Amino acid sequence: MKIAILPGDGIGPEIMNEAVKVLNALGEPFEMETAQVGGAGYAAHGHPLPEGTLKLAKEADAVLFGAVGDYQYDTLERVLRPEQAILGLRRELGLFANLRPAILYPELAGASTLKPEVVSGLDILIIRELTGDIYFGKPRGVRECPDGPFQGQREGFDTMRYAEGEIRRIAHVAFQAARKRDRRVTSVDKANVLETFQFWRDIVTEVHTEYPDVELEHMYVDNAAMQLVRAPKKFDVLVTGNMFGDILSDAAAMLTGSIGMLPSASLDAANKGLYEPSHGSAPDIAGKGVANPLATILSAAMMLRFTFGRTEQADRIENAVKRVLAQGLRTPDIFEAGTSRVGTKEMGDAVVAAL
Amino acid sequence: MKIAILPGDGIGPEIMNEAVKVLNALGEPFEMETAQVGGAGYAAHGHPLPEGTLKLAKEADAVLFGAVGDYQYDTLERVLRPEQAILGLRRELGLFANLRPAILYPELAGASTLKPEVVSGLDILIIRELTGDIYFGKPRGVRECPDGPFQGQREGFDTMRYAEGEIRRIAHVAFQAARKRDRRVTSVDKANVLETFQFWRDIVTEVHTEYPDVELEHMYVDNAAMQLVRAPKKFDVLVTGNMFGDILSDAAAMLTGSIGMLPSASLDAANKGLYEPSHGSAPDIAGKGVANPLATILSAAMMLRFTFGRTEQADRIENAVKRVLAQGLRTPDIFEAGTSRVGTKEMGDAVVAAL
Ligand SMILES: CC(C)[C@H](C(=O)O)[C@@H](O)C(=O)O
Ligand SMILES: CC(C)[C@H](C(=O)O)[C@@H](O)C(=O)O
Repeated sequence: MKIAILPGDGIGPEIMNEAVKVLNALGEPFEMETAQVGGAGYAAHGHPLPEGTLKLAKEADAVLFGAVGDYQYDTLERVLRPEQAILGLRRELGLFANLRPAILYPELAGASTLKPEVVSGLDILIIRELTGDIYFGKPRGVRECPDGPFQGQREGFDTMRYAEGEIRRIAHVAFQAARKRDRRVTSVDKANVLETFQFWRDIVTEVHTEYPDVELEHMYVDNAAMQLVRAPKKFDVLVTGNMFGDILSDAAAMLTGSIGMLPSASLDAANKGLYEPSHGSAPDIAGKGVANPLATILSAAMMLRFTFGRTEQADRIENAVKRVLAQGLRTPDIFEAGTSRVGTKEMGDAVVAAL
Repeated sequence: MKIAILPGDGIGPEIMNEAVKVLNALGEPFEMETAQVGGAGYAAHGHPLPEGTLKLAKEADAVLFGAVGDYQYDTLERVLRPEQAILGLRRELGLFANLRPAILYPELAGASTLKPEVVSGLDILIIRELTGDIYFGKPRGVRECPDGPFQGQREGFDTMRYAEGEIRRIAHVAFQAARKRDRRVTSVDKANVLETFQFWRDIVTEVHTEYPDVELEHMYVDNAAMQLVRAPKKFDVLVTGNMFGDILSDAAAMLTGSIGMLPSASLDAANKGLYEPSHGSAPDIAGKGVANPLATILSAAMMLRFTFGRTEQADRIENAVKRVLAQGLRTPDIFEAGTSRVGTKEMGDAVVAAL
């Protein structure tokens, strides 16, 4: 069980410390090796995804990833910016299936900007395709506009695309995940405008014939954005492409008001995966010892479940997190009157104690 | 002042009746002509945007549009489906600037799924580019995948693109609109991933030099989706491309919980425009006389303001709408205990009475 530990930038190193602490407390024979990534990778080796880091990630069975990005790297040219490390890892490791649960813990219902009755008990799973779509499609660039009223001017352009096999495999992931839940899948597309997503809808419909026990609904992305605000609890599994998934999974996470609690998994065809919190590197609070480590700790639990098949250990971590919440411990991002404010390290220690 | 009246499908004809009634009550020399569009266009002339309808729309100074779409047209091939009428009108009339205010009337604060303190007093203006982006970019279609691991399979594909002039003109619209408001523009892009939107960011930044009195902020689309849920009142004017605007403007509308109240304008370079409610054709309640006509009535007010420069008349309508809300009149979509439930026609009559 070899794990590549990539803390990254901002609060990344702090929250990663706590996750590693929790993993060490499980008494399993993990082999962990740490490497630099993002701005830290650039600072040390001139590239956000240094060769050694990529090699380590490829050799490991799983990657535990903190967060990347910090102010001083904002002015670098795009190919050197921290977020290129994420895109590079996804592409190089073939991590096509991004699973992002949006769960609202009962104790944290007050943190949401939505009314409690709209979100309490929220438990949806967003599955975002992660290696296709307009993120990687070619050609792309800036060229001379070839025709139409703006002919001859410069234009920026990109290519959206999905091949049949790419859609099939993510559809299978969604239907199989639904079988372990409420057996309902909402496939989000824009089939009324985009050829890519009319094709997406056709293929998802085909794959669905292999899952007669799962209910499939198609929904346009604009409507999905509305329904997430209007009645998010109506969803069970929501599956969509890379670009729409980027937007909807963040919106869904924010519905909970506690994005510091939400883990994510990005898996390849063999369930090898990269696990990371859904939140970012929060450079404004980095180094202050106040960041919430729970999303990273819960990402480690997802790793135990999906890559290592250690279900009991995953359950142990998840139950420990529930216990510290029940004890009233809160980092500042989820603090409310009547609870106890703790720092990053105390929160990690409390989870270890609750294991 | 020639107005093309295109009621469309579903509740379109009912809500349009009320808007026409309000326009007639103003005592202005409007010349109105009605034509079929959407499913109704297809049923009468075999096409969602019949030639005669397009001709009328082109000759008129403004188009007042109801809504399109109904169950029986769902199985038509894509080019004949009702929504093609909207896309066709936008393209043929060059309606590149879509203005969608998201306003929460104090009386309706309870209708939102968000907590009152998060949305009460909400007043943001979303400006969506409407004739470019991946909506119309070519090439597009289904082809054989030319390379990579899925080579040889079928793939759906589309082209995202924005020419310099297209970005410039929508940026000008945004900065000028901000001058009449709180002088703050948030430009939403995905410059960290897409060439199209890195180019968008560069051009918006250039145009901004002409508006030193307006504050400009750039924001990634995933973050914008989160901030709309977290703290929507922080926005003043939000400008973005066609695809992101489709998603974000619907999410923003739904924040108010009263999408039946929200008008929209789609303008060309000479302020000729198409005006329509932000909601859809709601075929489930069509013909029952319960649809909310206020979004269409407020769209007529936007028409008076933007295309005809009749500011006082626009104010008259908007104030009349505020008055009927203050009187406690509510169609079922915005009904709450303690208010008076009315139908489509009574609501229209009440606005006329309040003019
Ligand atoms: C940093 C960025 C490239 C990335 C994405 O757009 O995928 C991020 O927003 C995410 O969702 O992981
Ligand atoms: C009907 C559809 C083509 C249209 C769009 O995507 O633009 C609609 O969603 C809208 O926002 O007006």
